[in-house]
Amino acid sequence: MPVQQALGRILSKDVVAQAHVPAFDRAAMDGFAVNAEDTYGASISAPVFLHNVGEIRIEEKPNLTLKRAESIAIVTGGQMPQGANAIVMIEHTRAMGKETVEITSEVHPAENVSRAGEDVERGSIVMTKGTRLLPQDLGMLRALGLVEIEVAQKPRVAVLSTGNELTDGDLREGNRIPDINRPTLMGALTELACEPVDLGIVPDQFDSIRDKLVEGIRDCDMVLVTAGTSVGPRDMVPNIIDSIGKPGMLVHGIAIRPSMPTGLAVVDGKPIVSLPGYPVSAYISFLEFVHPLICHILDTNLPPRPRIRARLNRRIAGVLGSRTYVRVKVTMSNGVCMAEPVRTSGAGILSSLVQANGFIIIPENVEGYEEDHEVEVELFRPLERKKSVN
Amino acid sequence: MPVQQALGRILSKDVVAQAHVPAFDRAAMDGFAVNAEDTYGASISAPVFLHNVGEIRIEEKPNLTLKRAESIAIVTGGQMPQGANAIVMIEHTRAMGKETVEITSEVHPAENVSRAGEDVERGSIVMTKGTRLLPQDLGMLRALGLVEIEVAQKPRVAVLSTGNELTDGDLREGNRIPDINRPTLMGALTELACEPVDLGIVPDQFDSIRDKLVEGIRDCDMVLVTAGTSVGPRDMVPNIIDSIGKPGMLVHGIAIRPSMPTGLAVVDGKPIVSLPGYPVSAYISFLEFVHPLICHILDTNLPPRPRIRARLNRRIAGVLGSRTYVRVKVTMSNGVCMAEPVRTSGAGILSSLVQANGFIIIPENVEGYEEDHEVEVELFRPLERKKSVN
Repeated sequence: MPVQQALGRILSKDVVAQAHVPAFDRAAMDGFAVNAEDTYGASISAPVFLHNVGEIRIEEKPNLTLKRAESIAIVTGGQMPQGANAIVMIEHTRAMGKETVEITSEVHPAENVSRAGEDVERGSIVMTKGTRLLPQDLGMLRALGLVEIEVAQKPRVAVLSTGNELTDGDLREGNRIPDINRPTLMGALTELACEPVDLGIVPDQFDSIRDKLVEGIRDCDMVLVTAGTSVGPRDMVPNIIDSIGKPGMLVHGIAIRPSMPTGLAVVDGKPIVSLPGYPVSAYISFLEFVHPLICHILDTNLPPRPRIRARLNRRIAGVLGSRTYVRVKVTMSNGVCMAEPVRTSGAGILSSLVQANGFIIIPENVEGYEEDHEVEVELFRPLERKKSVN
Repeated sequence: MPVQQALGRILSKDVVAQAHVPAFDRAAMDGFAVNAEDTYGASISAPVFLHNVGEIRIEEKPNLTLKRAESIAIVTGGQMPQGANAIVMIEHTRAMGKETVEITSEVHPAENVSRAGEDVERGSIVMTKGTRLLPQDLGMLRALGLVEIEVAQKPRVAVLSTGNELTDGDLREGNRIPDINRPTLMGALTELACEPVDLGIVPDQFDSIRDKLVEGIRDCDMVLVTAGTSVGPRDMVPNIIDSIGKPGMLVHGIAIRPSMPTGLAVVDGKPIVSLPGYPVSAYISFLEFVHPLICHILDTNLPPRPRIRARLNRRIAGVLGSRTYVRVKVTMSNGVCMAEPVRTSGAGILSSLVQANGFIIIPENVEGYEEDHEVEVELFRPLERKKSVN
């Protein structure tokens, strides 16, 4: 794809430099290109005089060879002529009429010269397969003379919501509630250079769910399905997945809070992730299981996540044997970061993810943390928000 | 704009809940809706028997009022009927024929019930102006019943490169080099929810540069211009900016390394940032000056940046009186993070930004850091990269 459109995409091949960057020796300063030996001993009290043969404009390739005792004016970035091996900075020169330059300081060979290949050597690997392309990488690809680049295809990820009560439409009919998980998960997939494929909402019926999962497996690289993954009478998703193909469910039930009912499955070599219906659980499961899985498929590493150390403003409890995710709001005052737990339970409470700016993760073997304990917070929003002026 | 397209955009108004979320009292567990008083004293050895009047399906609005000594089956998320104020979990019940339920544990009023407004109260401010919309925010907006949302317009930012030697085309003619700054800056602007406007490349001529800057100021909200901002004979940009309008250049020359020649200007109430021509300098100036300026225009806060503590594997030198940005490559081994300076000078060396995964910032009043000193690194890539398998 064109380099300029490849922002955020993942390189699918190493990028090898086909030429030196810079391609030629270039002036690193404004001044005069010289043969360094001609300046040896030059000082303010004992200047050297060189015959100046003209000027090299930055956009031109010099077509002369500098002889001994000659100089030529050059600007930063200008290409060094044959016969020159150093630049005398303009500050250490004085023009003496049109054809003579006074040199008041000596230079050594290579001084103030950017040599060809100084930035990148021809044949070197500049970026490796799996690199997520940042803005400066686009610049580097252009510097290498590349206009197009090979990137990994966007994984197509199907997203299915299950639940008789869910609707994308009118909330006033019956006990209808909006489907929250699809917009959230599709947004999260878009952020990760995936192509979300909307499978819509299906009711809690074996065949309806099965048909959609089969469609997802057939058309996409991965399927995410929300709700129906617990152990109640409506929780058919694990059985449905097992009915589709082998190996089916690999893991069902994970020692994390929330998100415990998460299920991980493979059918026809494609992953199906069975996410809890509660939006907070679904989102945390996405971060912890789906995001790494997508990076694995793309053969790239997880991008770094912002973390900060903060003191707890009250005690928080974990669950021994489970990893617990606590949503917190971190504020900074007088240089001290304080973390306030937004709500330590209630996976149905979506506003906890909206009010929070970070998570604390309490490990499996920790009962909880006392007030004032220093914890590490994974930040997903700024510490401070703008005050409303409405 | 439609909620689903608003990922990464900035709210231009507070979002106020027009209704409770959830809209009604709802069951938080599978079980039986009851009047709590009817269960008082119930235990395995002294169960209470209630007359069960049917079942509430999750998608329906119940149209009955529960009488005393009655129960009705309900699933998690089902809407509570009139007359019920608690849920007995299914684990604490036993069906005794079709019309009788044995209750073996008492419940208190509100037990196992998600009350209306528990997540969001009607009339409360759910998100404030200036919030950058994350995936879970899209879900929350849908939970509030919103389909469209008001967001700040994308700032239009013009990007102009100056330099006789620059080309987007054939590198073999003369001493041509590719323009690196426009692809990099336009990519960085795209990441920040801006609309980059490409003003192309102009040669180092007063009128050509001036015409393009005037065009940028006329059509866009901000102008970025690279190169020509130092103090040599080709460095006309500050004078050109001053010739366009008032107040013109406000700052020219900043005590940071690299990026010292950065200039900040305002013309007709619009910012012009005069960035150095060296790609590393231009990019660091962008991060330090343009990114905060864009957040200011959007009335939002800077998103958190990932940071990590690491030990230096060799000494690095700062410049007293200047803030110095050192590109480093951080690696983790046996749980210890080591930072290796990629190159401490050479703003022309673009590969330093490609090889590095972070910056160390040496403050103005620090001469440098010794080997093994623990420093804070601002990370922009993962700690580890995939090994090449090509």
